[in-house]
Amino acid sequence: MNLAKLQQQIDFIKEIDKVKYIQRKTKLFHSDRNENDAEHSWHLAVMAIMLSEYSNEPVDLLKVVKMVLIHDIVEIDAGDTFIYDTQKNHSNTDEERVAAKRIFGMLPQAQADEMIAVWEEFEAGQTIEAKFARAMDRLEPLLQNTSNKGGTWQEFDVSYQKVYDKKSVIKEGSKDLWVFAEELINESVVNGILRKEEPNSATSE
Amino acid sequence: MNLAKLQQQIDFIKEIDKVKYIQRKTKLFHSDRNENDAEHSWHLAVMAIMLSEYSNEPVDLLKVVKMVLIHDIVEIDAGDTFIYDTQKNHSNTDEERVAAKRIFGMLPQAQADEMIAVWEEFEAGQTIEAKFARAMDRLEPLLQNTSNKGGTWQEFDVSYQKVYDKKSVIKEGSKDLWVFAEELINESVVNGILRKEEPNSATSE
Repeated sequence: MNLAKLQQQIDFIKEIDKVKYIQRKTKLFHSDRNENDAEHSWHLAVMAIMLSEYSNEPVDLLKVVKMVLIHDIVEIDAGDTFIYDTQKNHSNTDEERVAAKRIFGMLPQAQADEMIAVWEEFEAGQTIEAKFARAMDRLEPLLQNTSNKGGTWQEFDVSYQKVYDKKSVIKEGSKDLWVFAEELINESVVNGILRKEEPNSATSE
Repeated sequence: MNLAKLQQQIDFIKEIDKVKYIQRKTKLFHSDRNENDAEHSWHLAVMAIMLSEYSNEPVDLLKVVKMVLIHDIVEIDAGDTFIYDTQKNHSNTDEERVAAKRIFGMLPQAQADEMIAVWEEFEAGQTIEAKFARAMDRLEPLLQNTSNKGGTWQEFDVSYQKVYDKKSVIKEGSKDLWVFAEELINESVVNGILRKEEPNSATSE
């Protein structure tokens, strides 16, 4: 056994404990307690295992699970970016790339290269696995918000169209799950927990 | 798509959110905040991915990951049992079996059967995958306690021999990781965070 190599892996395992402190905007089901990135990643991994049959094409499930388990590790350095944030785009910022290099770079070289590649693949969202993993990432907060009377949609005054546009990424991973998700979004409007119209941008004097 | 089947899977996904509320005795690294079962399961899954090369025999990694992700779901009904609890044995209680049937039983039949089998395999600890998964489950709190000045060993006055006996399960999954773990346990005695001698059971008058 190469003890120096193992020590690198152990150091990485200790470092990623910080993921448990990163608070997301979304709340647990029927709750006002914020979810953290470790809980979120665990939930996505179990979801991927339970729902893989709905992927548009057969997936390498182990790769999907790796993706969802590690996709938020970069937030140790880069922080959580809210999907409906109007100032910052969630996708693949330079800050996250630097974070990926530092954190996965703690691992032995071959493993670091593999994990950075897995993370980049998730972020790019082009492969079947990345599309399905991203569908999980969009589906979980939809389930949470609908269980929480609108949740972050209400808290941050997010409109139907924005939710619809962000969630339609689910379709690329799973047309079946999109049918289910679209129905949930439409029901949310009917139930009054998601507002259909855009706000009037004109100010009255 | 069979919508009734999908609804069963979604109901299961919502139910297991409760895992995020189950507090373990162990604390996060360098912290006094208790870890919950979802965070713990996430950490074990990433550890399994990073450390699988050290398994005594090649493992089906996806199965190991499934095991560690779902191994504590039964605690939604049965509660967390502390490994050094002297009253209750952690292994495969009737209560946990009933919980497994109820919770995994929410899934469509074939999936329920698969997940119950995966959980039973983990609990039995006989296959290569179960042995490696159990090694992860024992290694994480060892890393936590050594980072926390003895952590639960100090808090619950656990002796070297008890720790050594419980942790030696790691060897069955990975002789290499056991070399590392044994060294950590011995260092803990030297560092004064784990007491070597058994308490004197005789009372003085």
